[in-house]
Amino acid sequence: YDLLLKNVKAFTTSGPFEGDIAIKDGKISKIGGDIQEQADKTIDLSEKYLVPGLIDGHTHMEFPFMGEVTADDFYYGSRAAVAGGVTTIVDFVTPAKGQDLLSAYEKWRNNADPKVVSDYGLHMIIREVNTKILEQIPEVINKGVVSFKLFMAYKNELMLPDGELYKLIKRISDFGGVTGIHAENGEIINELIQEFLSEGKIDPIYHYYSRPDIMEIEATNRIASIASMIGKDVKMYIVHTSTGEAVDIISSYRRQGFKFFNETAPHYLTLNTDFLKRPDGYRYVMSPPLRSDEQRTKLWMRLASGDIFTIGSDHCVYSDAQKKRYKEEVPPFNEIPNGVPGTENILPILFYYGVKKGIISMERFVEVTSYNPARLFGLYPRKGTIMPGSDADFAVIDPNRKVRISADVLHSNINYTIYDGMEVEGWNVMTIRRGEVVYEEGQVIGKKGSGKYIPGKTPILL
Amino acid sequence: YDLLLKNVKAFTTSGPFEGDIAIKDGKISKIGGDIQEQADKTIDLSEKYLVPGLIDGHTHMEFPFMGEVTADDFYYGSRAAVAGGVTTIVDFVTPAKGQDLLSAYEKWRNNADPKVVSDYGLHMIIREVNTKILEQIPEVINKGVVSFKLFMAYKNELMLPDGELYKLIKRISDFGGVTGIHAENGEIINELIQEFLSEGKIDPIYHYYSRPDIMEIEATNRIASIASMIGKDVKMYIVHTSTGEAVDIISSYRRQGFKFFNETAPHYLTLNTDFLKRPDGYRYVMSPPLRSDEQRTKLWMRLASGDIFTIGSDHCVYSDAQKKRYKEEVPPFNEIPNGVPGTENILPILFYYGVKKGIISMERFVEVTSYNPARLFGLYPRKGTIMPGSDADFAVIDPNRKVRISADVLHSNINYTIYDGMEVEGWNVMTIRRGEVVYEEGQVIGKKGSGKYIPGKTPILL
Amino acid sequence: YDLLLKNVKAFTTSGPFEGDIAIKDGKISKIGGDIQEQADKTIDLSEKYLVPGLIDGHTHMEFPFMGEVTADDFYYGSRAAVAGGVTTIVDFVTPAKGQDLLSAYEKWRNNADPKVVSDYGLHMIIREVNTKILEQIPEVINKGVVSFKLFMAYKNELMLPDGELYKLIKRISDFGGVTGIHAENGEIINELIQEFLSEGKIDPIYHYYSRPDIMEIEATNRIASIASMIGKDVKMYIVHTSTGEAVDIISSYRRQGFKFFNETAPHYLTLNTDFLKRPDGYRYVMSPPLRSDEQRTKLWMRLASGDIFTIGSDHCVYSDAQKKRYKEEVPPFNEIPNGVPGTENILPILFYYGVKKGIISMERFVEVTSYNPARLFGLYPRKGTIMPGSDADFAVIDPNRKVRISADVLHSNINYTIYDGMEVEGWNVMTIRRGEVVYEEGQVIGKKGSGKYIPGKTPILL
Amino acid sequence: YDLLLKNVKAFTTSGPFEGDIAIKDGKISKIGGDIQEQADKTIDLSEKYLVPGLIDGHTHMEFPFMGEVTADDFYYGSRAAVAGGVTTIVDFVTPAKGQDLLSAYEKWRNNADPKVVSDYGLHMIIREVNTKILEQIPEVINKGVVSFKLFMAYKNELMLPDGELYKLIKRISDFGGVTGIHAENGEIINELIQEFLSEGKIDPIYHYYSRPDIMEIEATNRIASIASMIGKDVKMYIVHTSTGEAVDIISSYRRQGFKFFNETAPHYLTLNTDFLKRPDGYRYVMSPPLRSDEQRTKLWMRLASGDIFTIGSDHCVYSDAQKKRYKEEVPPFNEIPNGVPGTENILPILFYYGVKKGIISMERFVEVTSYNPARLFGLYPRKGTIMPGSDADFAVIDPNRKVRISADVLHSNINYTIYDGMEVEGWNVMTIRRGEVVYEEGQVIGKKGSGKYIPGKTPILL
Ligand SMILES: [Zn+2]
Ligand SMILES: [Zn+2]
Ligand SMILES: [Zn+2]
Ligand SMILES: [Zn+2]
Ligand SMILES: [Zn+2]
Ligand SMILES: [Zn+2]
Ligand SMILES: [Zn+2]
Ligand SMILES: [Zn+2]
Repeated sequence: YDLLLKNVKAFTTSGPFEGDIAIKDGKISKIGGDIQEQADKTIDLSEKYLVPGLIDGHTHMEFPFMGEVTADDFYYGSRAAVAGGVTTIVDFVTPAKGQDLLSAYEKWRNNADPKVVSDYGLHMIIREVNTKILEQIPEVINKGVVSFKLFMAYKNELMLPDGELYKLIKRISDFGGVTGIHAENGEIINELIQEFLSEGKIDPIYHYYSRPDIMEIEATNRIASIASMIGKDVKMYIVHTSTGEAVDIISSYRRQGFKFFNETAPHYLTLNTDFLKRPDGYRYVMSPPLRSDEQRTKLWMRLASGDIFTIGSDHCVYSDAQKKRYKEEVPPFNEIPNGVPGTENILPILFYYGVKKGIISMERFVEVTSYNPARLFGLYPRKGTIMPGSDADFAVIDPNRKVRISADVLHSNINYTIYDGMEVEGWNVMTIRRGEVVYEEGQVIGKKGSGKYIPGKTPILL
Repeated sequence: YDLLLKNVKAFTTSGPFEGDIAIKDGKISKIGGDIQEQADKTIDLSEKYLVPGLIDGHTHMEFPFMGEVTADDFYYGSRAAVAGGVTTIVDFVTPAKGQDLLSAYEKWRNNADPKVVSDYGLHMIIREVNTKILEQIPEVINKGVVSFKLFMAYKNELMLPDGELYKLIKRISDFGGVTGIHAENGEIINELIQEFLSEGKIDPIYHYYSRPDIMEIEATNRIASIASMIGKDVKMYIVHTSTGEAVDIISSYRRQGFKFFNETAPHYLTLNTDFLKRPDGYRYVMSPPLRSDEQRTKLWMRLASGDIFTIGSDHCVYSDAQKKRYKEEVPPFNEIPNGVPGTENILPILFYYGVKKGIISMERFVEVTSYNPARLFGLYPRKGTIMPGSDADFAVIDPNRKVRISADVLHSNINYTIYDGMEVEGWNVMTIRRGEVVYEEGQVIGKKGSGKYIPGKTPILL
Repeated sequence: YDLLLKNVKAFTTSGPFEGDIAIKDGKISKIGGDIQEQADKTIDLSEKYLVPGLIDGHTHMEFPFMGEVTADDFYYGSRAAVAGGVTTIVDFVTPAKGQDLLSAYEKWRNNADPKVVSDYGLHMIIREVNTKILEQIPEVINKGVVSFKLFMAYKNELMLPDGELYKLIKRISDFGGVTGIHAENGEIINELIQEFLSEGKIDPIYHYYSRPDIMEIEATNRIASIASMIGKDVKMYIVHTSTGEAVDIISSYRRQGFKFFNETAPHYLTLNTDFLKRPDGYRYVMSPPLRSDEQRTKLWMRLASGDIFTIGSDHCVYSDAQKKRYKEEVPPFNEIPNGVPGTENILPILFYYGVKKGIISMERFVEVTSYNPARLFGLYPRKGTIMPGSDADFAVIDPNRKVRISADVLHSNINYTIYDGMEVEGWNVMTIRRGEVVYEEGQVIGKKGSGKYIPGKTPILL
Repeated sequence: YDLLLKNVKAFTTSGPFEGDIAIKDGKISKIGGDIQEQADKTIDLSEKYLVPGLIDGHTHMEFPFMGEVTADDFYYGSRAAVAGGVTTIVDFVTPAKGQDLLSAYEKWRNNADPKVVSDYGLHMIIREVNTKILEQIPEVINKGVVSFKLFMAYKNELMLPDGELYKLIKRISDFGGVTGIHAENGEIINELIQEFLSEGKIDPIYHYYSRPDIMEIEATNRIASIASMIGKDVKMYIVHTSTGEAVDIISSYRRQGFKFFNETAPHYLTLNTDFLKRPDGYRYVMSPPLRSDEQRTKLWMRLASGDIFTIGSDHCVYSDAQKKRYKEEVPPFNEIPNGVPGTENILPILFYYGVKKGIISMERFVEVTSYNPARLFGLYPRKGTIMPGSDADFAVIDPNRKVRISADVLHSNINYTIYDGMEVEGWNVMTIRRGEVVYEEGQVIGKKGSGKYIPGKTPILL
C-alpha cells in the first residue's frame, strides 16, 4: 500500500467505524478492523475524526462579475479549499456575453488545470439562448459538465426570462443534466434598487431591503411550477437557498416525486442581516442577502431534517479594495461586488454549530458536505464516500481543537474574513486528496496543479 | 477469517462498492478491493447484490390478539424472516391486561430465545397506566427495550386516552426511549363499526369503510400536536402509516426540528381496497386498512423522497381457520383477526416495485430496510450497515431471479399469501446472520434458537 | 305609525342609507328618503349611526358552573345587553347531570321569561348521551332551540368523547340543527393542570400555560375531521375561537363546501396573556385563555377577511368574591370560575378598534354582530337586518362619543370590568327593541320581563 | 312617485323582504310593507324575485384584439346585458400601442355614450409604461375610472414584465385605485404554443394544453407576492380565475389582511375542457381556457364559501366568421380570437346551477352579482343594493320559468351561444334601470344611448 491510516474513527452516511484504511494508487483499497499489511507511509489518526473529503459544489474562482475578477484564482481558491478539508470544488464556467459554451469550458479548464490543488469539477452557466448554445448542451455534458446554472436574478446581466428557463431546463434534462437555479425575482429587485437609489438610500443594508425574502420564495415557487410541467425526470436544485419557505416549496414537490433539491451556504446559517449595518457591512454583501435569525433557525431545522440537500459555500471572494471599487467611501450598495469567502469555513461551521451543538448528526454532516453533492453532480461513487474503490479523499477533524477564526488562520487571497472573531471547537487538521496529504496543520502542502479535473456523469436516481 | 465473501457488489447507504468482505467471529473484519488472506469458508457472490441484512421493525410473533394467537410463533416467524433476507426482527412485547412490563418482557424472552432463527429485538406495548408501569419504563429500557408502542385505536382493548398518551410519551422520552404510535381515531372507528353492524353491513369491505383515511390523518395530527408540546427531544414514530397526508403532517414537524418519523408496510404500497371485496377478502383485513391506488402512489412518492423513514412488515399471521374464527362463513368484519403476513415479502416488493421500476435507488432501499430501523431502534451501528466491526448480517439478492409468489415459496405457518400470483424480478437467495449462512436457495439452514436477543441502546440524533 | 326615526344614517350588510324608518307593531314598516306620515313618537337621529340591534349569540346568565352560579341573572344580564346595543341574546340551556333536555329547557324559560329586558333565544348544551336525550333532540328543535353546544374540554364535567360527539352531531344535523363546539383538548389540559398543581404552580398565569394554543388548534382539526365524515349538510361552528390557525382550519373546510364557521369573542381581540399576571389576574381567567398579541392580530385580520363569522361575548360573570371562592387569597388557577363579562362591550370594542381604526367596514361590523348570528341561529330575517317586516331592533351609536370604560358606566351585577380604563370613541346611546326604546343614555328603561323568547328556525343555506 | 313596485319579494345581501318599493327620479325612494301612495306607474311583481340590477364588471364591447373588433358593440352588448338583468356593465378602455390613457378614455366614452342601453363604468387597461402614462393615472381616476387592468399573459401584446407590474400597482394604489390582473404566465404559454405549433398540434384543444392550470396558479402567486410588498392598502383582484388553487392563494393573503380578491366567470362554472374537442370547439376558445370538472367543482365551493368575490362575464364576442378568421377551416388554435359571450348568461347560470341546485343562497347570489362588484369598482352604494337613495336598478326573476338556451333567446350580435341546448329554470323577465323598464319578456325596450356613464369613486374598505 501507498498509505495506511491507522486507528481511524471514520464517519460516513452509513455510519461510523473504527479501524484502519489502506490506500493504493490514490484509491481506498481496504477498510478493516486491524490491517497488518505493510505500507509506504503510515499515519496514526487516534483521537481524530475522519470524514470523506468535502465537496464544495459552489465556488467562483477567477470569476469575472460586476466588473471585477474574484481575488481567489484557482490556485488561491483551491488552497483555501483543501485547508478547509474540501478535496473537490465544483466551479462555474461563466461564458462571456456572446461566447459559446465549449470555448468557455476550454477557458476554464485552462485557468484551472495548471493551478488547482484540490480536485475540481465544473458547472456551466448559461446566460443567453441561441441555436449554438442549445446544440452544445449535450457536448458539454460529454465533457463531464453535467450540471448547469441559470439565473432568475441580475437583470440585464445573467437573468433569463421564464420562457428561456423552460426551454433550457427541458433541453438539459433531455440529456440527463442537472439544472441549478439562482432563484430571486430579478425584475422586482431591479425596481427596488432603483427606488432606493432615487431616494438616496445607498448603504449596504439597502442591499437587503432590495431583495426581500418573498422574492426568493416567489422565484422558487415559479421555477418549480415551470420545471414540474416538463416531467418527473427533471433534476433541479435551487442554489444558496436562504429562506425556510423556499425549502418547503421544493420539499413539497419532492414529496410528489419530483427530483428537486436545495442547497444552502454556511453564511445563511450563521450570520444575519445586522452584519450589513456594520462599518464593514460592504464585506457582507452577497445575494441572496443575509436574513433574519428566524430564517437562520428555519434553515438549521431543515438541514437537520434532510430537507436541505447540500451545502455549498458560494465562495466568491473580493478584496476590500474591490468591494469598495477602489474608492475611499463605500460605494452605493448596488455597486459592491456580490460575494463572500466560504469554502474554508464549511467544515468548522457545520461541525461546531451543527454537530457539536447537537443539531445534526455526523451522518448528516457527511451527507450534506460530500455524499449528496457527489451524487447530485455525478461524481459518485468515485467521490463522496469511504468505500473500497473510491478516491482516497479525506478530511481529518480534531474534534476538540479550539480556534478563533481570523484572516490569519485562513488561506484566501484577502485580508479579512466574514467570520472574524468567531470561536469554534473542531477544526480540519489534515486533508488527504487521492491518497496524498495536501494539507496539514495550517500548511498547504499540495502542489499547484496537482489537482485533477473530475468529469461528472449524469446523475442517476437520487 | 471465518468467512470470506468474494466478488461482492455491495450496496449501503453510502454507496456501492465492488470487492471482498472478510468476516471473523460473526463480525465484519475487512472490506477491500481484493482480499487475498485465507478463510475457513469462501463464497463467491458474482452477479449478486449484497445488502445489509434487513431489519423488520414490526412483527407480531405468538401474538395474542382478538382471541387468537398468531400462527407464526418465533420459530416459524423468524424462519420466514431469514428466508426474506431479514436478519433481525423487532417484535412487540404485549403485556396482558394487568400484567406488569418486566414480567411480560420475561415471557417474550422465554418465548423467543429457544426458537428464533433470526436475531431479534423487542418493543414494549403499553396498554394501561399505573404507578408500577411508569416505574418500570426505565428498567425496561435498561433491558434493551428502548422503543414502545401506544395505541390510539382498538377501543376497550389497547386504546389509551390522550392524557395517558401524553404522560407515557413524556416518561419514555425522559429516559431516552422512542414511542411508536398506532394512529387511528379508535373512538370514531368504534362508532362506525356499530353503525355498520346495526345496518347489517358485515362484509370485509366495511372494515375499510369503518376506518376512513381521515381518521388516520386526524390521529396523526393529534399525537404530533401532543408530543410537540413535550419538546424537541421527543422521538416518535407513527407505525404503518397508510396515507400520504399523515406522512406530510409528520414531515412538517420534522422540518421544524422535531424527531418524528413514519413507517409504512409493504401491503400499503402494493395492494388496494378492492382486495377486501374478493371472496377471500377476509385475508386482507388489517388495520389500518388497504387504501386507494391514489394513496399507494402517494406513499411510493414519499418513500422515494425520504419522507417515509422505515419499512416494517406488521407481520401478524392468522391461518384461514383463525381468520374465519373456525366457521364456515366469513364472520362479520369486526370479528376477523386483524393482520397479514409480510416479513418475507419486504425485500422482493421493495426491490422489484421500488428499485427495478425506477422509483427508489438501492441507497434508499438499504436506508429504509436496515439503516434507518437500526438507528431508530438503537441497534446501530452494530446492525444496519456494512462496516468493519458491525455484525456480518447480509441478504444476497439475485437481481434477475423471476419468482411467482405463492404460499409454496414462502415459509410462514399458513397455507396462503396475500401476494398470491404476483410476479417479481429479484429475490433473496442467501441470508447471512452474524457470519453464518442461515438461508440458501429456499432452504432455511439456521438452527432453532440460534438467533440472539439484541438489546437496543437509546437512539442518538437521527 | 308607532314610531318614526328621522334623519337616520343606517348601516346594514347591504350598505348605508340616509333617511327615515317608520315602525308599527314592533316591526319595520317603511324605509324611505323622507317619510312624511304621522307617528305617535318621532326621534331625530341626526349625527348618529343606526345599526341592527346586536345579537349576542353566546351568553351564560344564571349559569351554574364550577360550583357557582353566574352573578348576572337574566335580569341583570339582559339589562347589560340592551345597554350595549344588544337586543337579542342567545343563552345556553345547561342541563344538570342526569337531567333531560326538555325539563332543562323549561327551567331556562322559567328563569328567563319573567326577567329578560332583551329578547332572547336558546342553545342547548348536551353533556351526556342516552336514549332519552337522543330522542328529545327533534323535540327541542321544535321548541325553537335549533343550536346545540358540545364540549371537547372540561374533563369529568362537560367533555364528551369523540364517539359521542360524532353521534350527536349526526343526530342534530339529521333534524337541521347547528352544533357549536368548545374546541380544546380537555384530556391534555387536564394532564397539564395536574402537572402544574403538583409542581406548586398555581398562579392564574398557569391557566394559560395549561391550555396551549395548539390544544385548541388540535381539537378544531379533530372535530372538523369528524364532522366532515357526516356530510356537507352538517352545520357546525366553533365557539370562542382564540387562534388564527383554528380559524384557518375551519375556512379550509368551508372552501371545500362544508358549512363550518367560527365565532370569536371581544376579549380575544383586545386583551393578551399579560393580564393574567396582574394582581387581579384571576378576573381574566376564562377558557380558552387570553393569547399573545400575535394571535390577537391574526384574529383581527380574519375578522376583516370574513373568515370569522360571528362575535359572541361569552358573557359569563362572576363577582370578585366568587372568582376568589370567598377567600382572601386567590385560589389555585384551576379553582377560579372561568368567565368574564362582555355583552355590553361588543359594540364599543368592534366599533372603536375595528371600524374607527380602519380594520373593518361598517358592513362587516353589522355582519358579525347581527346579520350572521341571526342566520346561524335561525332568527333571520326576523332579526339581523333592517328591512320592512323585520323586528324594529336597533342600536344607535354616537360615533364621536368618548368613553373611559369602568364598572360605573356598565350594567352588570359586579363591581369591576376587564376593560377598566380603556378609552374608546363610539358608544351606544340608545337601544330600540321591537320599536320600544329600552335604553337611552346610560339608563335602561326596558321593563323586567318585557323581552320575548324568540324561537329559532333551523337555518337554511348560509 | 314615478314608479311603484307592488308585492315585491326582494333579495339583498341583508336579506329578503316582502312589500313595495317606490321610485322617484330614478332612485329608490321608499321601501315598505304596504305603500299606499300614488305613482304614475305601478307594476305588480307577485310570484317574482326582485334583485339589485346585476353589475357585470368584465365586458369587452367594441374591443380591438387579435386583429378583430368584437361583434358586440356598445349597443348590441348593452342590449344583451339588460336582457340578462345586467343594469351596469364595466368595460375596458383599451389604449392602442403608443396611445395615452386619456385619449383612449375619450374614445371609449365616445364609443359608448351614444349607444349604451345599460349604465356603464370603465376600467383602464395599461399595456405599456412611460412617464405620460404614469402621470395620467390620477387624472384617469378623477374621470371615474378607478380600476385598472394589467396583463401577465399575451406576450408581445399586452403582457408586462414583473417590474412594470410592480410600478403600476404601486402608482395606482397611491391614488386609491384598484388593479385587476389577468394572471397567467405568458412567457411559458408562449413557449408551449410554439412547441405545439412546431409539432403540428393546432386543434383548439391545444389552446388548453398550452395554458396549464399551474401557469395560472403560478402567476397568481407571483402577483400576490409582488403586491404584498407594497402594503396592505393595495386593492387588487384577479380577473376570471379558473382554478381553485389560485382562489386559495388569494384567500390566504386576505386572511393576513390584504385586500386581494378573485373574480370568476360563468363559463368556468358550467363548461369543461371537453367542449374544445367538439367540431365547434373554436367557439370555446377563451383565456384562461375551460378546465376540468374537478376545477369547476372547486370554483362552485369557493363561490359558496365567499372566497370568490365577484362574477364577471368576460363578455367578448366574436362571430363564427371572426373566430375562423374568415376561412373555411378552423385556424390554428393560437389564431382564434379569444373570447366568448356571457353577460346575458350570468343570471340564469348563477340562479339555476347555484341557487336552485342548493349551492348558494340568494344572499350570495346578490353579493357576487351586484353588491361586491359595486363595492370593488367604486359604484356603491349608488349601485349594488336596494336601499332608499340608491339607483332603482333591478332584475326581476321568474324563478320557475323554464328556458332552453339558444341563440334565439339571446341578444348578442352573433348566431350561436356556448350554452346551446342548456335547460335552466329561472329567467330574467324584466329589467329596470334607474326606474325605467328597459327590458321585458324578451324585448329590449330601453333606448340606444339612454344608459349613463357612472363614474366610480375609489373604493373604501371592503
Ligand atoms: Zn447566485
Ligand atoms: Zn454563486
Ligand atoms: Zn397497529
Ligand atoms: Zn402491528
Ligand atoms: Zn366554552
Ligand atoms: Zn361559553
Ligand atoms: Zn383576460
Ligand atoms: Zn377580459
